[in-house]
Amino acid sequence: MDMEEVSNKQVILKHYVTGSPKDSDLEIRTTSVKLEVPQGSGAVVVKNLYLSCDPYMRGRMSMTKPHGTYIDSFTPGKPIVGIGVAKVVDSDNPNFKKGDLVAGMTGWEEYTIITATQSQSLFKIQHKEDDDVPLSYYTGLLGPAGMTAYVGLYELCSPKKGDSVFVSAASGAVGQLVGQFAKLFGCYVVGSAGTKQKVDLLKNKFGFDEAFNYKEEQDLDAALKRYFPKGIDLYFENVGGKMLDAVLLNMNLKGCIIVCGMISQYNLEKHEGVHNLFCLISKQIRMEGFLVSDYYHLYPKYLEMMLPLIKEGKVTYVEDVAEGLEAAPAALIGLFSGHNVGKQLVAISHDNI
Amino acid sequence: MDMEEVSNKQVILKHYVTGSPKDSDLEIRTTSVKLEVPQGSGAVVVKNLYLSCDPYMRGRMSMTKPHGTYIDSFTPGKPIVGIGVAKVVDSDNPNFKKGDLVAGMTGWEEYTIITATQSQSLFKIQHKEDDDVPLSYYTGLLGPAGMTAYVGLYELCSPKKGDSVFVSAASGAVGQLVGQFAKLFGCYVVGSAGTKQKVDLLKNKFGFDEAFNYKEEQDLDAALKRYFPKGIDLYFENVGGKMLDAVLLNMNLKGCIIVCGMISQYNLEKHEGVHNLFCLISKQIRMEGFLVSDYYHLYPKYLEMMLPLIKEGKVTYVEDVAEGLEAAPAALIGLFSGHNVGKQLVAISHDNI
Repeated sequence: MDMEEVSNKQVILKHYVTGSPKDSDLEIRTTSVKLEVPQGSGAVVVKNLYLSCDPYMRGRMSMTKPHGTYIDSFTPGKPIVGIGVAKVVDSDNPNFKKGDLVAGMTGWEEYTIITATQSQSLFKIQHKEDDDVPLSYYTGLLGPAGMTAYVGLYELCSPKKGDSVFVSAASGAVGQLVGQFAKLFGCYVVGSAGTKQKVDLLKNKFGFDEAFNYKEEQDLDAALKRYFPKGIDLYFENVGGKMLDAVLLNMNLKGCIIVCGMISQYNLEKHEGVHNLFCLISKQIRMEGFLVSDYYHLYPKYLEMMLPLIKEGKVTYVEDVAEGLEAAPAALIGLFSGHNVGKQLVAISHDNI
Repeated sequence: MDMEEVSNKQVILKHYVTGSPKDSDLEIRTTSVKLEVPQGSGAVVVKNLYLSCDPYMRGRMSMTKPHGTYIDSFTPGKPIVGIGVAKVVDSDNPNFKKGDLVAGMTGWEEYTIITATQSQSLFKIQHKEDDDVPLSYYTGLLGPAGMTAYVGLYELCSPKKGDSVFVSAASGAVGQLVGQFAKLFGCYVVGSAGTKQKVDLLKNKFGFDEAFNYKEEQDLDAALKRYFPKGIDLYFENVGGKMLDAVLLNMNLKGCIIVCGMISQYNLEKHEGVHNLFCLISKQIRMEGFLVSDYYHLYPKYLEMMLPLIKEGKVTYVEDVAEGLEAAPAALIGLFSGHNVGKQLVAISHDNI
């Protein structure tokens, strides 16, 4: 094969970030790449199609992570990385061949040479041409966000019919699914979000029983008491801070708090203090954090459950798609001020066939 | 039987308390009591022998408990109540007869009429005259403190041989036992306490591997890193606040935090903020609160395990005994400034035979 060198636009982290990230902390750079992998490398070259914007990526933009590290920082001057859907353009790996569609960790650029091709980092999408499921779903609903909602809800807490479930950041990639999964289980589900549009989505599209705009509530404790007069059995925590404090006051005896994220805190130099942890004792609450990466052995089971639900229209999924790599920095940074409505992703190319 | 009326000294809560309690929030009052229960009442009259001083009693001295209520407030103007060991002097209940030794909820006074005689509230001590186990142990080691240590450690966390265990308030009623139980399991155990004397006890009497005085540490995070260079697997939480924040930074992946108490916070109008809860996610930590009252069905099993351990000298237990009801207010209040060395109790009478 002739060595083909093509232009490659990239999203570069300019420098480590403290406080709130800005679009200008990232920049677009154009370089070039050879669309061929050296023999014996085991690597693949992919053309990136969809890139996922995820809250955890904020941590990777910081040099130091005082609250515990589970993933390395990005390297300033280099393209950032994240979950994406891509098409293989060259492969030296027996598990992947040219034309395969794959999902996994890739670069924020048009083409990426992926050397970490273990099953957890990169997997082949079993996509059929007549399949109704959009490829982009593998960045979220059929990717980490969906698995996160599934694992958190079912593996860690097992909601029962009639349980009262509260979800914060409920219209986001994970929240919208947690709410719908809990409804499928027969739970009473309330979500919070930060705009009227999102609240409408929760009630009218995702089928939450109730939803409220936390920015319009002077007193979160009072708001929760209004929506949960009998208390909360299960809280799916995506935001942290003041919301967690208010939730603790409204948890029921032997309730469960699944700690998935704390997006309200990620841009703060020091996270807000949570004052009501004594409730863990008085109400005998279990509070448990998790990382979806530890549960990927359940992915085939999840896919088997989800694909029919999607096709039968029993699960709704809203994406917020930014078009083109140039739109990627604003899409990622917008997560932290709640600009996105639904799962935020970036479409780099629609050339998926 | 003739109705016998005797003098009865009582410890009275004068008024609800905010902030740090003082001895003078309690007063000694002398009244009289008839040592006979009405027929058909199902009640018993007991002569109190030993009264247990427990941190949770601080909550009962407040009118409002913003952090979740699991037990009612004391009634100002009336004697306070708590766990005690007593001798039955009259009974209208078929489960108890005159002369029986009992343990359970009783009044802080010389004689108490106990109407709540269900098995969980009051039980008969199977005490033998040739038994080496002091009766007072039923206020702690063989009562709620022992059960709390046992349930928290074994039922909620199941330590494994070689696990690193940290215990705060480690020389207290519960802490001294948690540390010893963990050592029996082959764990590496470190405790914190607030005086040199207590630290010495931990190392030289209770067999902790290491111990430190938290008041002498400028930087709790650094102290924990010194004693746990490989991190903490299991934290038995008795204090809350800054210690919890430092522990979170030093927990290992998939560690376990058993939340038993938060004594450093009980006198504060608003509990201190805990800032490092993000570690629950990044380290996939489970944090769980419990109340021992939910586990009393395990008491016979516990007793069966403990009595031989005590007789074989495999468990050491240090009590701090205040003599006489007049000493009771200072004994209780002293808990909150760490005056006690070991399990604090009050001996009202040694007339146990």
